[in-house]
Order: sequence, then C-alpha cells, then structure tokens
Amino acid sequence: MMARPDAGEKATPTSTQLLAEQAAQKMFLEDRASQSLGMRILAVRPGYAKLAMTIRPEMTNGHATCHGGFIFTLADSAFAFACNSHNLRTVAAGCLIDFLAPAYEGDELTAEATEQALAGRSGVYDVLVTNQKGQRIALFRGRSRQVGGTIVDTSHDAA
Amino acid sequence: MMARPDAGEKATPTSTQLLAEQAAQKMFLEDRASQSLGMRILAVRPGYAKLAMTIRPEMTNGHATCHGGFIFTLADSAFAFACNSHNLRTVAAGCLIDFLAPAYEGDELTAEATEQALAGRSGVYDVLVTNQKGQRIALFRGRSRQVGGTIVDTSHDAA
Amino acid sequence: MMARPDAGEKATPTSTQLLAEQAAQKMFLEDRASQSLGMRILAVRPGYAKLAMTIRPEMTNGHATCHGGFIFTLADSAFAFACNSHNLRTVAAGCLIDFLAPAYEGDELTAEATEQALAGRSGVYDVLVTNQKGQRIALFRGRSRQVGGTIVDTSHDAA
Amino acid sequence: MMARPDAGEKATPTSTQLLAEQAAQKMFLEDRASQSLGMRILAVRPGYAKLAMTIRPEMTNGHATCHGGFIFTLADSAFAFACNSHNLRTVAAGCLIDFLAPAYEGDELTAEATEQALAGRSGVYDVLVTNQKGQRIALFRGRSRQVGGTIVDTSHDAA
Repeated sequence: MMARPDAGEKATPTSTQLLAEQAAQKMFLEDRASQSLGMRILAVRPGYAKLAMTIRPEMTNGHATCHGGFIFTLADSAFAFACNSHNLRTVAAGCLIDFLAPAYEGDELTAEATEQALAGRSGVYDVLVTNQKGQRIALFRGRSRQVGGTIVDTSHDAA
Repeated sequence: MMARPDAGEKATPTSTQLLAEQAAQKMFLEDRASQSLGMRILAVRPGYAKLAMTIRPEMTNGHATCHGGFIFTLADSAFAFACNSHNLRTVAAGCLIDFLAPAYEGDELTAEATEQALAGRSGVYDVLVTNQKGQRIALFRGRSRQVGGTIVDTSHDAA
Repeated sequence: MMARPDAGEKATPTSTQLLAEQAAQKMFLEDRASQSLGMRILAVRPGYAKLAMTIRPEMTNGHATCHGGFIFTLADSAFAFACNSHNLRTVAAGCLIDFLAPAYEGDELTAEATEQALAGRSGVYDVLVTNQKGQRIALFRGRSRQVGGTIVDTSHDAA
Repeated sequence: MMARPDAGEKATPTSTQLLAEQAAQKMFLEDRASQSLGMRILAVRPGYAKLAMTIRPEMTNGHATCHGGFIFTLADSAFAFACNSHNLRTVAAGCLIDFLAPAYEGDELTAEATEQALAGRSGVYDVLVTNQKGQRIALFRGRSRQVGGTIVDTSHDAA
C-alpha cells in the first residue's frame, strides 16, 4: 500500500484504487484498536476490504469460545475500511451481526466487507466472517454515514 | 456476589437472585475477554445485568474515538450476563447496535441489559450504553438462544 | 386532531403538540396504505405515536396466523407518525423486527412508538406491538432520516 | 408447481426440488395475505424463492411512495417460502430491512430470497428487492426458526 506516482490524476480505476489504499493505510496507522488486536489488511478496493485476525486467549469468554464482541470488532473494522475506501470520512450508524458458528482460540478469522448500496451519504455493507477452514462464523450488515471531510488530503495533488 | 446460606432452597425471589449472582460470578471468572478489557459487574438480577468499562487508549480508532467494536463488546457482555442470569446456558444468536454518539478515551461507559421477552429457549434483550455524563452512546438489541445445560451446578443443593 | 387557534405561536409545549397532531392528520389523509388496512391513530405527541389495527382474514398466512408483514406494517406506520411528529419530513432508513408471539385473525393490535434518540437528521425509535390482552407480539426498532421539508406548511403562521 | 410421479423417492436433487415446489404450493394456497396482495411465485428451490408483486394505489403512503410495510411484506413472504422449502415448518424470528430507494405505484417488485446459513433449527436468509429496472429497493435479512412438523405430509409416500 505504498504511494504511487499517479496519485494526482483524475479518478480513473487506478487512482480510485490508489485512494482506497492510501485511505486504508492512513486509517490503519491511527487505528490503535485494530492494530492492538493484531488485525491485518489483506486487501482493499473501492467499496471493499478484507481483514484477518487470530483469536488470542484473552479474546475468549465463559463458554471457552471467542467472545462475540471480538468477532464483531473484526467485522466492524472491515466495514470501516470498506466504507472509507472512497476517501470520504464515514462512520457506522448501525450494525447487525448474526452468529452462525463459534470461533475458538487460535482460529484465523477473515472478514470480507462488500458495498451493497451507496446513495447520497448513506451506504449498506455486508461482511462475511469465516475461519481458516472456510466455515461461516458470522454475517454482519452495517449502515454507514458520511460525516464530511476526507481521510487522505488530496487538495495539493493538482500542484 | 458471595454465596448465601439459603442457596439450596427452592426458587424463591431470594434464590433466583442468588443463582443470578452465582452464575455471573462463575461466568466472569471464565471470561478472559471481559476481564482483560477491564469490565466490572455493577449489578445482576434475573433478566438484568449492569456492567461498566473505561475506554483505554488501545480501544480508540482512526477517528480518535472509541472503536465501535469495544462499545459492542461491552453491550454484548451485559447481554450475556443478563441472559445467563437464569442459570440456563445461553448464547447470542444475533445482535443489532445503533451508535448514537461517540465515546472517547477515558470515558466510563455503563451498559445496562434488560430482558424484553423470553419464550421457550429464545429471548430478546435491550442494552443501553451511556457515558459518565449519562449521555446515550449506543442502543443494542440481542436475540438469545438457550443451548442446554446450566452455568452453576445445582444438582447437589438438595443434599 | 382539529386545528387550534394558537397554531402560529412559537414552539411551546402546546404548539409542538399541535404541530404533531396536524402533521399526523395530514400524513394520515395521504396515507392510503395505513387507511386501507384500517389503522387508527390513538395518540400522537412529539416523538410518540400510538396506532391500532384489527387483524382481518386477508392478513393471515399459511400458518393460520397474521402474516408478519402486517405486524411490521402497523409498527412501521407508528414509527412514521412518531418520527414525523416534529413536522420535519422523515423517512425510514432501516428497521429491525423481532417476532415474539403470533397474532390471530380478529386480534386488536396496538403499536406504540417512542423516540429513543434524535441527533442531527438521524433518529432511533422503538415500537412495541401488543394484542388486546396486553401480550407482547413484536418489538421493532427503526432508524429514521430527515429528508428536508415539512409536513404541514407553517410559513404563513406569522401573518 | 404440479405434483410429479417421483414424489415418494428418497431425497435426491429431484425430490428435494419437488418437495420445495409442493411445500410452496401448499403454503401459497393457505396464505391469504400473499394472495390478496397479488404476489406471484416466480421460482422456488431448496433454500431459495423468488416472488413478484405490483405496487397498487392502496399500498402508497403519505410520501406518495410505496409504504415500507408492503416492501417488507413481499420480502418476508419470499423469506418464508425459502425457509420452508425444505418442507420443515419454519417461522421468522427476526428480520432487518434496509430501505435503499423508494418504490412507486405501478412498480413491479421482485424479491429474491437466498439461504445464507442453516444450522440446527436456525437459519439466516438474505432477500434482495428490486424494481422492474433492476434497481435495488431494499435489502432484507431474516432469521428463521423451525418449529416442528412438515408443510407437505410425506408419511404415506412409501406406501
């Protein structure tokens, strides 16, 4: 996710992809939560993000399985990277998660967020969380809201 | 939440309260996630739980505010303690969270979970998350499912 | 819900109540859906609405109970009247419904919508649907979005 | 959706398809709600259903658009046909709908329901509602619960 020389060009497929990568890079640097939980960004594109996280012992709860909160947090981060991929500052308004199967200590979870709709300042994103065997762990649907401003400052790019 | 001498009695208001406390105590001991995030149980009753958590620096994200995942996790824990308060092992099926206002580093959040419905093995619980000023931070609604078994073993109580 | 002489006054408790009633009255006149289903407005206040509907034979489905869609529609109408009660044109962004118990032909359902949060143009409303015995039939949570404009034109009130 | 001669065979791809069709046929005959709203079943397969409905004048509301309740009802019916397609009696536990764009009088809406997960007695289904131009009108996610029993009686098939 390093900067590329064509960053100042108009929004071509290349530059929208570049912006998505730059926005994700900047967000991740500021996102102590996602970092401290060991999340890794596997891919980011306009309207899309894929993250991974390994379930640590301190993420488990009283049923000896991963606390649902950490599954949600991974999905919510993937959602955040996907809905900020257009370089327009966006926050979560509301999210639904359905837990399908338990996750266990040591599991490698992947969350894949895909834009379903974006109209005006509101968007809807679906996130699928799977484990290292490809089993579905959770389905997440998030509603986003643009709040004004950008992630990466592009105002000097035309200079 | 210490054991009381009437633990072996039939389910009177006192003993259902005692069971709720014992179940919460046992769950919390096994719940590394809630412990490691610094959650504290403020109150527990049949169908009810109130938890608190302070927002740490490593819970913040790219918008300099608390990552929504940790607000969810606090609410989800309160939900778990409330829906296991009848000493019947219960898990989350699905949860909706609506984010109303941002939370910041150092904020003291409280999550209050209240049973709205319980029919057969399914229940619905509402959780209200507020900050130290009493401002509403999030609304959470969880659907629970009993999975068989108990938290605290009561089979020897009649002895 | 008839017009009262003080309609042009500033927003006092009386005039906000009056606006809520006038907005509901106008909305209901235009709302063929709610009318044709036989809904009645029992009460409306700023941030609040209470509607009733009787389950007709043509509202039942293959399980010999009321189709969930009509329970949702009643709740959604109560939500709409509550979130438009401030006389600012508002639409539903998303809604969750949890079905708690079946409703049957001939049942008299009541839906009571209460504002839980309103910040900027977004709001969250809870609706409780009960039957004539006071049993809880469904819980509904709606997220609203103001879209600009008013229901009742108040621009001439100062004349 | 007529009965075929191989209805008594074991669950082969053909017979699961047949059962899905028979279950849908029987449900639709009993479903006065879906019938009276003019819904048509376009396709049904195990874990899948596609329905259509034309927006009538009496389905419109105060904003001159289709009342969200009727969009929900169409999606909910598609969900019901999909989750009963295995010929195991199933009801909706909870549903989320996100409204993406308005629908208007005369619009021809299609709702396509797809099984996302089915474990034990619980399932999750996604429904996409589009109009005659292919525009996305709403996203719906339903959680189902098997309640025991079948739609079509298959006990005499071995005779």
